Amino acid sequence: MTTYHLEIRVRPRPGLLDPEGTAVHHALDSLGFPGLSEVRIGKIIDIAVDAESESEAVDLVEAMCRKLLANPITEDFTIVHRTDPALAGGAS
Amino acid sequence: MTTYHLEIRVRPRPGLLDPEGTAVHHALDSLGFPGLSEVRIGKIIDIAVDAESESEAVDLVEAMCRKLLANPITEDFTIVHRTDPALAGGAS
Repeated sequence: MTTYHLEIRVRPRPGLLDPEGTAVHHALDSLGFPGLSEVRIGKIIDIAVDAESESEAVDLVEAMCRKLLANPITEDFTIVHRTDPALAGGAS
Repeated sequence: MTTYHLEIRVRPRPGLLDPEGTAVHHALDSLGFPGLSEVRIGKIIDIAVDAESESEAVDLVEAMCRKLLANPITEDFTIVHRTDPALAGGAS
């Protein structure tokens, strides 16, 4: 058994309303950030799961998404490795 | 002016309690998914911003994170390009 560290990104489907994103878009406009044409907000879930192989780990996490983590009507999800080069960030 | 599509990932800081992640961890255990050692939940914000250069776009988005999008006490953020090869996912 190996522990696999995966990242799930759950996003509102394209074309569906995203009221949280709209609210944040307006808030950023009010704070003086112009030039925004899109703000959409989803969830990021970091998960560590024990499995015999990576493909088994991904299958498990995909099943979790279908059963609990993503709303099949309103959200899409992707599963990726937890390694990404950041352009900026860190402590906020 | 070019429109830059960036992705912000806002996560609870390591070591800080993440009650939402803990609740989802328990829910997944109850649904019959064993072998989970970590579940932590953050936000993913897709943003399209007009700027003269990529570095200006990143600087703008970093300022948005510090002013509104991330809680400086409890959260860290990273800013990345919106392009990632998915291991699995799509329509949930």
